[in-house]
Amino acid sequence: MLQVGFDIGGTSIKAGVVRDSRDKVDIAASRRIPFPTGDPYGAVVDLMAKLVAEMAEELKIPVSDFQSIGVAVPGTIDATGEVVINAHNLYFHDVPLKRAVEEKFPGIPVLMANDANAAALAEYYAGAFRGYGTAILITLGTGVGGGMVLNGKMWNGARNNGFELGHIIVKHGGQLCTCGNRGCLESYGTATWLKQQGRKAVVEYPLSLIYKKARGDIGNVSAKTVIDAAKENDPFAVDIFNRYVDYLSSGIASLAVLFDPEIIALGGGVSLAGEFLYEPLRKLIVRKSFYHVPVPVVPARLGNEAGVIGAAMLAKGQVS
Amino acid sequence: MLQVGFDIGGTSIKAGVVRDSRDKVDIAASRRIPFPTGDPYGAVVDLMAKLVAEMAEELKIPVSDFQSIGVAVPGTIDATGEVVINAHNLYFHDVPLKRAVEEKFPGIPVLMANDANAAALAEYYAGAFRGYGTAILITLGTGVGGGMVLNGKMWNGARNNGFELGHIIVKHGGQLCTCGNRGCLESYGTATWLKQQGRKAVVEYPLSLIYKKARGDIGNVSAKTVIDAAKENDPFAVDIFNRYVDYLSSGIASLAVLFDPEIIALGGGVSLAGEFLYEPLRKLIVRKSFYHVPVPVVPARLGNEAGVIGAAMLAKGQVS
Repeated sequence: MLQVGFDIGGTSIKAGVVRDSRDKVDIAASRRIPFPTGDPYGAVVDLMAKLVAEMAEELKIPVSDFQSIGVAVPGTIDATGEVVINAHNLYFHDVPLKRAVEEKFPGIPVLMANDANAAALAEYYAGAFRGYGTAILITLGTGVGGGMVLNGKMWNGARNNGFELGHIIVKHGGQLCTCGNRGCLESYGTATWLKQQGRKAVVEYPLSLIYKKARGDIGNVSAKTVIDAAKENDPFAVDIFNRYVDYLSSGIASLAVLFDPEIIALGGGVSLAGEFLYEPLRKLIVRKSFYHVPVPVVPARLGNEAGVIGAAMLAKGQVS
Repeated sequence: MLQVGFDIGGTSIKAGVVRDSRDKVDIAASRRIPFPTGDPYGAVVDLMAKLVAEMAEELKIPVSDFQSIGVAVPGTIDATGEVVINAHNLYFHDVPLKRAVEEKFPGIPVLMANDANAAALAEYYAGAFRGYGTAILITLGTGVGGGMVLNGKMWNGARNNGFELGHIIVKHGGQLCTCGNRGCLESYGTATWLKQQGRKAVVEYPLSLIYKKARGDIGNVSAKTVIDAAKENDPFAVDIFNRYVDYLSSGIASLAVLFDPEIIALGGGVSLAGEFLYEPLRKLIVRKSFYHVPVPVVPARLGNEAGVIGAAMLAKGQVS
């Protein structure tokens, strides 16, 4: 089975032909081009057609050999799976993308999903979630995002507006979130929060290792600066990192008591902290979960390819 | 189809024969007896057999005409659905209840579920959730409990430890919960919290209507005292009630952004406050939900019969 997957992002459009055999999923051909400026919507659909033709040529097969085209977008999709309601980074608002792509490829089924959900599906077919039925992927970057596989199916809530895990409320009345509410997980569980706290340390604690690493300039502070200083046992950085893990674990514990997933995988920049993050996080999640049943918390495996693979896998009829 | 349902509680055992025809579910016979003292486990199973025999006699049919026996218990059930791991109010710990009941009724399938999950299933087949696929039932009493129907199936997490919605964390670092954690929804969203705050008002604000209604005695304060005083516009009670709705909406908004349910129903004592509760609650849930998509919030319909009906409906093969 050869299936095309697209991962459309505000920076680049990634495309791949995914070969799906009984026990293995791999990428037979791939492309990556910049996201177009100007009139992105029309241009994107034309570029998609061009990339599909190129990949078919590379594989020396006709385009009609592709059994489906899946498209992952960073935004909201309506309940029918046909219209991109909002994808701010793409300047897409109420765009009937599915139909537009179908018109370019008559006879080939087109499917569409949110990119975080597609990434979770990719982990299910080809990554950290193989062998599990119900699993949660959490991405810790500028924001907190994620996707879920439930009983082997991609799951996005009853009306396709679900699983916005960055916006569960972990601290009622807490810090203002970019969404306008207070105390969302995304107000605390992000690289952004670590960076903010690191900058504060530069201003307030010139004795901290964070200050030294940043050479006293808040512009040099990233989440990684804080994590690295914490790994070197700087007490200021350790304090920030401990609070980060504590907040994050409150959010993930809420997911654990609701979904009781078989496995959780973390992706995104902060997850690169490795066991330094995973080990205390696992302990706190178990402690804060009502039944104290452990859940494996592991790194996501697919990284940059997750969107393309997940989009291609949409065709397996696993969307519920 | 005649199906037996049991709702076993720490106060009473309820039994019913539920008649399930194409478009209607009703109770053909029912019994209610006190929960036994002494050795409850053995006694409970004997009493169940006796009640089934009585109801068959009342209906003038042999026991073998019952097509299934469903049992709802207030506790945790293992992933196989066979053992009650913990049901504190029944003094049941690691009790193989399913097998014990099966031995009393050879040839009749026996099914078991948590009572809150069974109640949600009952609303799906015979109450507020008819016509919906994905729905959440929330009970606001001494604690906060609930059950969920997901795509038409009772759902309790991947490993049967899920949907403990009283223990999602709504206020990181907040008030101590009975479970040992801090800031659980159950620390705020309960009749217990309203009562505590009402008692505080009696001590601190002798000018409040709560003080007057309680005749200055904290022993006379219940959640209802506070709700009634708030309905009469007592500013002290209004302040408590507003804070209650605010906390509760933070918890329910978290459920809404994760599950995006088609409908939410409320049960339990506090839900009797009626539109005085529902109207501000609906507004706050929409405001705190990431996509601001409204979700109907309605009263649960089945009340005391929910457990029996839900237990009987377990046989419809809808447990996932």
